[in-house]
Amino acid sequence: MTDPAAPAPRRRGRPPRSAGDDGPGARDRILAAARTEFSARGYDKASMRGIAKAAGVDAALVHHYFGTKEAVFAAAVEVDFSPALTVDAILGDSLDGVGERLARHFLAIWENPATRTPLIAVIRSALTHDAAAKVLRGVVLRRLLERVAAELAVPEPRFRAELAASHMVGVAIMRYVLEVEPLASAPPEHIVALVGPTLQRYLTEP
Amino acid sequence: MTDPAAPAPRRRGRPPRSAGDDGPGARDRILAAARTEFSARGYDKASMRGIAKAAGVDAALVHHYFGTKEAVFAAAVEVDFSPALTVDAILGDSLDGVGERLARHFLAIWENPATRTPLIAVIRSALTHDAAAKVLRGVVLRRLLERVAAELAVPEPRFRAELAASHMVGVAIMRYVLEVEPLASAPPEHIVALVGPTLQRYLTEP
Repeated sequence: MTDPAAPAPRRRGRPPRSAGDDGPGARDRILAAARTEFSARGYDKASMRGIAKAAGVDAALVHHYFGTKEAVFAAAVEVDFSPALTVDAILGDSLDGVGERLARHFLAIWENPATRTPLIAVIRSALTHDAAAKVLRGVVLRRLLERVAAELAVPEPRFRAELAASHMVGVAIMRYVLEVEPLASAPPEHIVALVGPTLQRYLTEP
Repeated sequence: MTDPAAPAPRRRGRPPRSAGDDGPGARDRILAAARTEFSARGYDKASMRGIAKAAGVDAALVHHYFGTKEAVFAAAVEVDFSPALTVDAILGDSLDGVGERLARHFLAIWENPATRTPLIAVIRSALTHDAAAKVLRGVVLRRLLERVAAELAVPEPRFRAELAASHMVGVAIMRYVLEVEPLASAPPEHIVALVGPTLQRYLTEP
């Protein structure tokens, strides 16, 4: 997404610009409204019409920019996961200590309610709707796991990256969604101290 | 559940036996119907009336045995999780190799569609409904994590048991729900070989 304001190709000759609401930032407004709608109502109940209404634009404009609900969801997931996807800085120049850095970065995202809430909404949608699961799988694979795997010097780097990711996903679900104690109340650094070395082994040990 | 046919205490003087359908096995029939309903429709859409209809009994009888939808769900979760809860044999006499045994046992449950389907349904319900999450948390804590933790000789045994459980939960979600490749297609023993030693460390290393 080098230019987030670039419209998608037009579809089936619809006249999306007729309402005159396609000013600068309309796409961003739609996307912000979509994230709120998906978070509040879930994938199933969110609608193109509801997203358009919340964004203050005509529904045709939402179709113009995104085409389908699945595509709006994909764009929202890209935004919601962008904090989790900034892996270049974490991978850094060396894999020394990468396990701890990843665990710390991941927990920081989940500790912040502003980034946690949409992540939980995305995961809930993905676990209950195949279309949402497909989108999440695509984004996570392409933006996160492939890039991490490319830096590794272990056998089956992608498999290793997925094992590390699976551990972090499980910690997030047990700690932030199921709220199992004492994991839910443990200080983040306490979790980093134990999980970091596990991730390190998956990502670096032959 | 020493006697699964034992009725719960009667509530508010309802006449649950009037329909003459309280024969032997009625409670088991209700529970089987409830598991099907929760799997097929999810926690939200499953109803006491629908469960009664599927079991071929009067709705009053479902209320008589279980009282609330949450209680029916709890009983269904106990059944669905019973394969996962048979930890005594896995813990065995010694903690040598317990990590591998746990990983292997856990994957075997998930590899079997008959046990996987209701587990996925329970986890989906728990991730989308607080009442279901509370039930799952209670069952998993009381039946699984506390019993595993009681066998451990590490600092913070419950925390360690939860870290191990979080890894397995994450593997299940990435492999069986999101179906991320290559994890989704990896032979179970290949996963056991890498995840087993991680669980072993959490459960036994000081």
